[in-house]
Amino acid sequence: MRIPVDIAALGSRAAAMIEELGAISASPDNLTRLFLTPEHRRAADLVARWMSEAGLVVDEDALGTVRGGWHPAGPDAPRLLIGSHIDTVVNAGKYDGAMGVILGILAVAEIARAGLAPSYGIDVLAFGDEEGTRFPTTLSSSAAAAGIFPPASLAGVDGDGVSLREALLAYGKNPDDIPSAAYDPSKVIAYVEAHIEQGPVLEAEGEPLGVVTAIAGASRLSVTVTGEAGHAGTVPMRMRHDALPGAAEMALEVERIARADRHGMVATVGRMHVEPGSVNVIPSRVVFTVDLRSGSDDSRREALTRFEREAHRIADRRGLGVVISAFHEVATVPCYRDLQLRLRNAAADLGHRTPSLASGAGHDGQAMSKLCPVGMLFVRCRGGISHNPAEYTSPEDMGLAAAALIRFIERFQLPQLDGGPNGAQT
Amino acid sequence: MRIPVDIAALGSRAAAMIEELGAISASPDNLTRLFLTPEHRRAADLVARWMSEAGLVVDEDALGTVRGGWHPAGPDAPRLLIGSHIDTVVNAGKYDGAMGVILGILAVAEIARAGLAPSYGIDVLAFGDEEGTRFPTTLSSSAAAAGIFPPASLAGVDGDGVSLREALLAYGKNPDDIPSAAYDPSKVIAYVEAHIEQGPVLEAEGEPLGVVTAIAGASRLSVTVTGEAGHAGTVPMRMRHDALPGAAEMALEVERIARADRHGMVATVGRMHVEPGSVNVIPSRVVFTVDLRSGSDDSRREALTRFEREAHRIADRRGLGVVISAFHEVATVPCYRDLQLRLRNAAADLGHRTPSLASGAGHDGQAMSKLCPVGMLFVRCRGGISHNPAEYTSPEDMGLAAAALIRFIERFQLPQLDGGPNGAQT
Repeated sequence: MRIPVDIAALGSRAAAMIEELGAISASPDNLTRLFLTPEHRRAADLVARWMSEAGLVVDEDALGTVRGGWHPAGPDAPRLLIGSHIDTVVNAGKYDGAMGVILGILAVAEIARAGLAPSYGIDVLAFGDEEGTRFPTTLSSSAAAAGIFPPASLAGVDGDGVSLREALLAYGKNPDDIPSAAYDPSKVIAYVEAHIEQGPVLEAEGEPLGVVTAIAGASRLSVTVTGEAGHAGTVPMRMRHDALPGAAEMALEVERIARADRHGMVATVGRMHVEPGSVNVIPSRVVFTVDLRSGSDDSRREALTRFEREAHRIADRRGLGVVISAFHEVATVPCYRDLQLRLRNAAADLGHRTPSLASGAGHDGQAMSKLCPVGMLFVRCRGGISHNPAEYTSPEDMGLAAAALIRFIERFQLPQLDGGPNGAQT
Repeated sequence: MRIPVDIAALGSRAAAMIEELGAISASPDNLTRLFLTPEHRRAADLVARWMSEAGLVVDEDALGTVRGGWHPAGPDAPRLLIGSHIDTVVNAGKYDGAMGVILGILAVAEIARAGLAPSYGIDVLAFGDEEGTRFPTTLSSSAAAAGIFPPASLAGVDGDGVSLREALLAYGKNPDDIPSAAYDPSKVIAYVEAHIEQGPVLEAEGEPLGVVTAIAGASRLSVTVTGEAGHAGTVPMRMRHDALPGAAEMALEVERIARADRHGMVATVGRMHVEPGSVNVIPSRVVFTVDLRSGSDDSRREALTRFEREAHRIADRRGLGVVISAFHEVATVPCYRDLQLRLRNAAADLGHRTPSLASGAGHDGQAMSKLCPVGMLFVRCRGGISHNPAEYTSPEDMGLAAAALIRFIERFQLPQLDGGPNGAQT
């Protein structure tokens, strides 16, 4: 049986819901909705109402994650989890996170309305801490669902000195209940999330949907290059130990390494601070950051080793010092091959090919991968722009993504998945 | 006749005077002595006392320049001008400027004491505005002496909103008298200045004294490179328009151009500002400065043309925008060949060879060159450090420089110089 899908109607409904949720903000001037704030509460209540209207049973866990359950085979049957997040960055776009929650609700509503009666249930999840904007830690709500919530993060404080523990209490939650937010891994089939791409690949390829192969691992480095200050007019070129050209060579090496990689590596020098920073003084010190991501942890580690070697070679040749310190390190989370194939087939049912791409941005799936297989569907966004009010995904693309989720659920016959992240494709 | 010189005694006296003048500061913690301040007044009074004690006739012009005159052939005889400045940067060293004034006084005192009776006179000048720290303009006191004072600069204000005009009035001067500060060009033979090198060349060559070939011309550019911001994790390398690697290539080109030059060119990227400056955002805009100096205006202009061409080539290849604007441009002031030779011979009399070097820093001689031939004697300073409390020149080197000035004056027979800046050496 094929459930009939009205892509235009789904898209139009999704767009209306995006606007309604996007109006809930801490500021009248822009969209800012942080974890465990009054805005989070209002957004969660709206999502809960939508879930109820879709026929889902709503509850909320100890981290404030809203769960809408459709359990035709009873509460003990294994569950497919579909979700995303409803928190935002400061001055955000309306689609990042919100769209995945809305499409999940719309898809399950259609499935439920069609009277499908599978042997498994579905929970739609609306996480509240994906962006990590308020507290020092991030993914705390999906970590709780996955059973890997780190208790130490309760002590982390926001910009006003409020701890996560205090914020949870103020939100009406009991930190002692956090363990009960965890799903039983034996009862979970998979976690699937639809999300805007946040990049320009799908737009460039002219395709509305893409299948994520992995959530890329990332390393962030702080690189300090030290030389000798001097008068810009009086120290001959041959006697200089100018930190800036050394740092410039290293920044170009970062780019060279990423371009040479065959695993879609991206690398960025996003900050560069020059000291003393006077037009007529030779720089004595340059500090810059490297953000390096790859769908392959091996290639990322090789790139880091190569960068370190080249940076020291450059520094030695120029009589400079260099200190490299890693301040952030996240391993790659491969998406489950079987889920990739099922998402691809679901889109193919709707006449669309789906480019494979790694997600360079982080997602709740990184935490959920500790619980169960993870799959992600990317939806084209205009200009690849996100974390910005200009963020936009068309109603048509959202309708198509909702329809693909419906086809995915509908075709989803096996409660147990075959293969692993690197297992054989079925 | 050779006036006997006691280099050790001259050096010891110079060092004591350096300490006494260096103690006059706006701050008890460091040396800061700006133009037309109470500190300037106290320093000018001390210099005037030293001049009187040396037998010089002291007056002060409309810009506060202290003039100590020794006029054995009467007030209408042509004059040799020897000077430097007594203002400092903020948190300065004690030698920059002060040393040249002190050595001038010591040298003329010895000449006068020895009873030399030449057909010309000598004025020792202590300018007050070489560093340009207080007002937007600089070299105003030497410009007034040279008769090229720009009246518009009277309107420029300091950090407290006080204009140069107001500051002059508060210092007891009348701006209407500025034209009378100008020397009659037909009555001036030359301007000669001893100054610390402010660079490391003499120290590296093991020589206490050097002869300046030219005060290098300088260009300062502001270079703005524009690309496209984007998520550091989601935009593939091939789709990026990252402003930072483009700017890095341009900065390396600046270095390459200066290194390839054969006229002692120096070039520095001293500031680099990256926007938006987040570790995980591709830079959309980088603004950096270029400070480029050369003893040859032709080579400097060729370098600017080459940089502009290469910067556009780099930008075009990367799909970036680049805008280059020059915000400072000073032509090279060649030192008079005849004066170079006379200074060299004076040092040779004392058993020292004098490396030739261009001055990368600016000096009052740039303004004085509009009045008369200019010559400069550089004195070795430790580590090439200046504009810093660590600035240091040994008493021995100062004594030697004072002795070289004595020999220079003593050997200075011709009231009219032969040759021009590029004229035949006599």
